[in-house]
Amino acid sequence: MPSPPDPLSTTLAALSDPTRRAILARLATGQATVTELAAPFSMSMPAVSRHLKVLEHAGLITRGRAAQWRPCRITAAPLKDVADWVAHYRRFWTESFDRLDDYLREVQKKGKKHGHGKHHDK
Amino acid sequence: MPSPPDPLSTTLAALSDPTRRAILARLATGQATVTELAAPFSMSMPAVSRHLKVLEHAGLITRGRAAQWRPCRITAAPLKDVADWVAHYRRFWTESFDRLDDYLREVQKKGKKHGHGKHHDK
Repeated sequence: MPSPPDPLSTTLAALSDPTRRAILARLATGQATVTELAAPFSMSMPAVSRHLKVLEHAGLITRGRAAQWRPCRITAAPLKDVADWVAHYRRFWTESFDRLDDYLREVQKKGKKHGHGKHHDK
Repeated sequence: MPSPPDPLSTTLAALSDPTRRAILARLATGQATVTELAAPFSMSMPAVSRHLKVLEHAGLITRGRAAQWRPCRITAAPLKDVADWVAHYRRFWTESFDRLDDYLREVQKKGKKHGHGKHHDK
């Protein structure tokens, strides 16, 4: 049996849906009710409510307490966890460019020394 | 019927598993074969292969061509997409601290003016 997901896995799973990311993008502009959130998505209220439950479970939003008017607000902590996690891999995309740079410089240098297309190391 | 997931959703779903993130962390130290990747996880080879397929489908790893020795390598582009996406929300966690700062400064100021614990606005 799989163990219950860790918080980062829960966050990433919650974010792996374009509608939920669109809801977060809307909430980034300010708090909103379920009705307000449902409007731009041409989605039923229950469908939006299900998405909100997933976001709430992941701690990505919080909801007001009043029974009728329960505005949703974005909460940043899980997003920061994603940013912190992915930051460990930053060198891989900066290095790709560094390596391409090195490669292009090398190719250029060899081109000048030996003529074209001779000394490719793989 | 749901439409096929967009690339960012596919990436985030692939990352929403601790074993797959551990595999990426291992590959961040250098390329590895399936056997080498399976070793630390006390996992069957088919289970590891399934995880690798998910990572490969999301473009997070590439695999060598040789039939026997198919080393896996991390690929950075989808991770950069995650970093770029989450960066849009950076102000939410920096603002939280800014707001806390403002609040603490205000409380301190009011404490000095009026004595303690009187003028909380909410």
